[in-house]
Amino acid sequence: MLDKTLRMNYLFDFYQSLLTQKQRKYMSLYYLDDFSLGEIAEEFEVSRQAVYDNIKRTEAMLEDYEDKLKLLLKFEKRAELVAQMKVAMENNATPEEIMSLLDSLEKLD
Amino acid sequence: MLDKTLRMNYLFDFYQSLLTQKQRKYMSLYYLDDFSLGEIAEEFEVSRQAVYDNIKRTEAMLEDYEDKLKLLLKFEKRAELVAQMKVAMENNATPEEIMSLLDSLEKLD
Repeated sequence: MLDKTLRMNYLFDFYQSLLTQKQRKYMSLYYLDDFSLGEIAEEFEVSRQAVYDNIKRTEAMLEDYEDKLKLLLKFEKRAELVAQMKVAMENNATPEEIMSLLDSLEKLD
Repeated sequence: MLDKTLRMNYLFDFYQSLLTQKQRKYMSLYYLDDFSLGEIAEEFEVSRQAVYDNIKRTEAMLEDYEDKLKLLLKFEKRAELVAQMKVAMENNATPEEIMSLLDSLEKLD
């Protein structure tokens, strides 16, 4: 399992198009630009608690989308297979080995 | 562009986890099992118009998800690259050509 911040960065990357503009702004400032809750609250003239609640709800939504669509999980599996293929190419693997990895890649979708 | 029924089958496949149970049932009967609107209406004891409206709304939702997440578009691009790699392997392409296709595959995500 990835570290929480890194995981949220990835999930945000995959699912941000499904969030509202406000959710995107808060998440982006908090997770990508490393603003504190207090700094975001000041920026938007709302309470620190309101920012905290919004971000917690958004995190839960992102995890729910991942439960349903598994885009991060599939991305990780594809990246792993592509990495294996690159190593196989560098080690002069047989065409059969490469083909077998390509088949696995096709089956992931 | 794919034929409408085929496209809906694909979009349903990618995004069905985001639909309600009723939406999934109607779509599945209509697009996968080829039921008519009238047959679905009879099965669920609702009007033909209600089924039609539900299916139209679901189709629009699926297209909206595709606009935002582009899972079908990315799937098609990945499938195309994997197919190109298989042809390249069969034609004894150089490792550089295969590596270049693998790089393109990585950049799609």
